[in-house]
Amino acid sequence: MQEVLRAHLEQIIPLTDEEFTFIESHFILKKYKKHQFLIQEGMPVKYVYFVVSGLLKLIHTDDTGKQQIISFAMEDWWESDYQAFYTQTEATFSLDCIEDSVVLGLSLESYQTLCEHLPKMEHFFLQKANRGYMALQRRLLSLMTSQAKERYQQLIHQYPTLVQRVPKTLLASYLGVSRETLSRLSFGV
Amino acid sequence: MQEVLRAHLEQIIPLTDEEFTFIESHFILKKYKKHQFLIQEGMPVKYVYFVVSGLLKLIHTDDTGKQQIISFAMEDWWESDYQAFYTQTEATFSLDCIEDSVVLGLSLESYQTLCEHLPKMEHFFLQKANRGYMALQRRLLSLMTSQAKERYQQLIHQYPTLVQRVPKTLLASYLGVSRETLSRLSFGV
Repeated sequence: MQEVLRAHLEQIIPLTDEEFTFIESHFILKKYKKHQFLIQEGMPVKYVYFVVSGLLKLIHTDDTGKQQIISFAMEDWWESDYQAFYTQTEATFSLDCIEDSVVLGLSLESYQTLCEHLPKMEHFFLQKANRGYMALQRRLLSLMTSQAKERYQQLIHQYPTLVQRVPKTLLASYLGVSRETLSRLSFGV
Repeated sequence: MQEVLRAHLEQIIPLTDEEFTFIESHFILKKYKKHQFLIQEGMPVKYVYFVVSGLLKLIHTDDTGKQQIISFAMEDWWESDYQAFYTQTEATFSLDCIEDSVVLGLSLESYQTLCEHLPKMEHFFLQKANRGYMALQRRLLSLMTSQAKERYQQLIHQYPTLVQRVPKTLLASYLGVSRETLSRLSFGV
């Protein structure tokens, strides 16, 4: 499991064995079954998660009980309710498993320790944060400008594996279209 | 001008005079008139900008010529076409002045130099990147879930000064509503 994390980190920062031993000692390995929750709305958020295997969804439930999918997370992705995690407040999102998942959790204290003791890790997290910001900005723009068909095509182009693994109902919710519209779109591609 | 930057940085990282002298030597002061462009779609993006004074808008123009407002930036905010800046590719957004503006520009080379030589600066940028990500996530959620009226009220609550300074037509575009709808909303608040 840890080798997956190491390979992922080393895409950005080369590490010595000693450094990696220090890093991995701060992560906690957790296994979840499909439908299990890692984060629940209204509860404290203890960890940011690195996904070793599996597939998860970050969702928000509005006042009427309707769910919006904020994002998906699969192998090599990081996910959490970041607002609640960084500010140590209650979750406004939920994170649960679409598939059985194995994750490595990092607490805020450990995140800060890693950044303080290993400037490389601060560099790594800065790179990831910048990339995350850019991806989110593209998603925002796509929601503001594109028709459902374009949004679907962009998603296939960017994340082909994801589109195959995510149930169509969830994909429709992520794209902000009805299940029926999505069927028409995916048939036409 | 530089004191504004120093006060801003010191909200997150305390600095010695020597450190700040090193930092400020990497920024370039620029002044722009209302309607002038700092970034133009299709052109290289040389700087990320810290706004000393003024008000700017980051916009995207779609294939039909319609403009979407991605974000506003005023005093103490950072703005750029980050995708183009970090990857040194051509801009897909434009950044121009709603009011006369004074900014401090930081090139990618200088950004990297500051991060390498002063771990504090990497820490600063990580904090800002995380906060930027959270703000963008709230904006995304707001676009996905809220009615125009709620979006307007959230904006007033979060950025009261901004709402007063931005022309109504631009505010309507940012909120994704017509100018007429916005008039009804702002009358009712």
